[in-house]
Amino acid sequence: MWILALIVMLNILLSIVGFCVILNVIPRFRDMFAKAGLVGRNLNTVEQLEIPEATGVISSCIFLIIMFIFIPVPFSKHLINREWGFPHEEFLQYVTALLSICCMVLLGFADDVLNLKWRVKLLLPMIASLPLLMVYFASYNSTTIIIPKPLRSILGTDLDLGILYYVYMGMLAVFCTNAINIYAGVNGLEAGQAVVIAASLILFNVIELSGDCWSSHLFSLYFMIPFLFTSVALLQFNMYPACVFVGDTFCYFSGMTIAVVAILGHFSKTALLFFIPQIANFIFSLPQLFHILPCPRHRLPRFDQETGLLKPSGFSFKTESLNFIGRLVLKVFQTLGLIRIEHHAKEDENMLQSTNCTLINCVLNLVGPTHERALAIYLLVLQVFCSGLAFLIRYPLASLFYD
Amino acid sequence: MWILALIVMLNILLSIVGFCVILNVIPRFRDMFAKAGLVGRNLNTVEQLEIPEATGVISSCIFLIIMFIFIPVPFSKHLINREWGFPHEEFLQYVTALLSICCMVLLGFADDVLNLKWRVKLLLPMIASLPLLMVYFASYNSTTIIIPKPLRSILGTDLDLGILYYVYMGMLAVFCTNAINIYAGVNGLEAGQAVVIAASLILFNVIELSGDCWSSHLFSLYFMIPFLFTSVALLQFNMYPACVFVGDTFCYFSGMTIAVVAILGHFSKTALLFFIPQIANFIFSLPQLFHILPCPRHRLPRFDQETGLLKPSGFSFKTESLNFIGRLVLKVFQTLGLIRIEHHAKEDENMLQSTNCTLINCVLNLVGPTHERALAIYLLVLQVFCSGLAFLIRYPLASLFYD
Repeated sequence: MWILALIVMLNILLSIVGFCVILNVIPRFRDMFAKAGLVGRNLNTVEQLEIPEATGVISSCIFLIIMFIFIPVPFSKHLINREWGFPHEEFLQYVTALLSICCMVLLGFADDVLNLKWRVKLLLPMIASLPLLMVYFASYNSTTIIIPKPLRSILGTDLDLGILYYVYMGMLAVFCTNAINIYAGVNGLEAGQAVVIAASLILFNVIELSGDCWSSHLFSLYFMIPFLFTSVALLQFNMYPACVFVGDTFCYFSGMTIAVVAILGHFSKTALLFFIPQIANFIFSLPQLFHILPCPRHRLPRFDQETGLLKPSGFSFKTESLNFIGRLVLKVFQTLGLIRIEHHAKEDENMLQSTNCTLINCVLNLVGPTHERALAIYLLVLQVFCSGLAFLIRYPLASLFYD
Repeated sequence: MWILALIVMLNILLSIVGFCVILNVIPRFRDMFAKAGLVGRNLNTVEQLEIPEATGVISSCIFLIIMFIFIPVPFSKHLINREWGFPHEEFLQYVTALLSICCMVLLGFADDVLNLKWRVKLLLPMIASLPLLMVYFASYNSTTIIIPKPLRSILGTDLDLGILYYVYMGMLAVFCTNAINIYAGVNGLEAGQAVVIAASLILFNVIELSGDCWSSHLFSLYFMIPFLFTSVALLQFNMYPACVFVGDTFCYFSGMTIAVVAILGHFSKTALLFFIPQIANFIFSLPQLFHILPCPRHRLPRFDQETGLLKPSGFSFKTESLNFIGRLVLKVFQTLGLIRIEHHAKEDENMLQSTNCTLINCVLNLVGPTHERALAIYLLVLQVFCSGLAFLIRYPLASLFYD
């Protein structure tokens, strides 16, 4: 028992070292990023300064280095006393998790540098998760899900999803890597949401350490603690006014890190609960992504140069140009108060203007024009609130549906 | 037996698909690289066109995708018939090898984009090889070397190197990743040498398939065949006049790929034999790298705009400004005909000019001013010749020193 505590302590210690290294390294890498042309304009500030882009590659590489140095520790007793036999199966999970994460860091960085096409972005996470699924198949191959009580009369107590379960896990990897990337664009939001999700998962893992599956949750902790510390370090530079952008590198890296611990730790459903804002944002965005509603190139909030505040961005349309589904979706969203539709006074009488279908614009609709720092804080408070909701669903409510 | 043949056939088939994909993809990525500013001037041509840099990232990513798709194949019988038990230990070797390779691709690409410092380049391959060494420790931990017959009266028949053997393997990873990078700068040389080394290793693996350690050599083949095909595809674009530069990404990727199969396949000494030109170039360069002799920023051959031929580059010095070791080294190199020293007529009487200490300049000293395409071919023929020498040392000569 005390050995495990010692190992976790060492993990925390390495994470703190990593935290300090990131705080020191990012300012020094600034020039390198500028020389490489990896810079972007911070559009929602008056100065619109050019700041380094894709600095997530630094935090993710430090994370990988921490994990590489940490790996031998949980296996030290087997390495020292070789008569105990080496737990290849357990070690395999570590290495596979790191392989999938490393692949996504590579893909993310390549995307930041080269601006890859969408189909590549969707295909590669699936390929990167192949070894992960194979390890899952070899080590557990448990594809049976327990049916909630109300549905048991129809479906029975459990259901073997078979290959569909692997499709689900592959999709989970693709979803996690892209969900954070889509719900972004406000200083501090990318790193901030990752921090909240990581902290929630750590709390969940700690609670579950006393349960039967403690070893899976310990495995998750070994990844999530360094992930939390490195993300907090990055957040220091990404909060308004941002000194750096985290880039797709960070979004892919954080999504895959969460996906691998969720898959190998057998708590993918609970992990998804911590993605409520991302899922809501994704579903809310679907009509625009599938072009049922018009989709402008950028859907980020508009910056008002005079007031220095952010306003919702929007798209123009004529009701008659929408098909039936489009009009229905628009009506539902408007009734739910998710979008605001106004007449486009200047030009055409029939021309209407709606706010874009993203959670960020939706929050701006609710609170009115807001400063970017305040908006990021609102969105992160929402994320924390949703994590609280997730715990409520996971513990008190779940007992209503499961034994 | 026929199952293994089928698996190798499938590996070759996937490699051919990868080969075709690279031939198709590289021309399409040209614009992306140009937009990202990942371009370099092809200095040794009259036109000095700007061509994409770091395209090794494409071939290495295709290699990784091939390996990810191929991985389940050798384990298919265990996956289909689960009663046989899954060989976690063997699978662990695959995944760890891929992890180390993926890390080096990431590092190489980061280096191409950001121009990392030298100490980072030396440190990171060591960290990237940590999981590899741990797998070696867990799976074999054989650190005993057989002493050659002439030395047995002093050292005994074998010697357990213990921790030193791990230091040796870590250094091997660092050496391989940097050796190809140092022996570069002529169109086609980077990819060409990798092709020759890969082909030599494949031949060696095929010879050893009939031996006791056939499974290690089969493991190596699974990696080396796709590596050969992807490198040949890249070579098509890198031969004079190069349409693309392969970048540090390719050098690190190829070095690490060779290092992992050598370490996990237990033939690191034989693998080193295929690096004779790289080792010679490295040792030859040491006096300049350690500043015992003056070292100009670039040591690549000089391009003569009038003739279109390459000439050796050099450095100027005064004999009295060198220390004793410097003068000794210079004398030895001159006596061996490795460098050519001339009087710097124009300025000072005491000012001398020597050709730089690289294998490329040495070959130019021997053959005189040469066209870049011919030089690349000479250097690759030398590489093939050295591989022949390596086989001579490994087979007929080794029997003189070992039982």
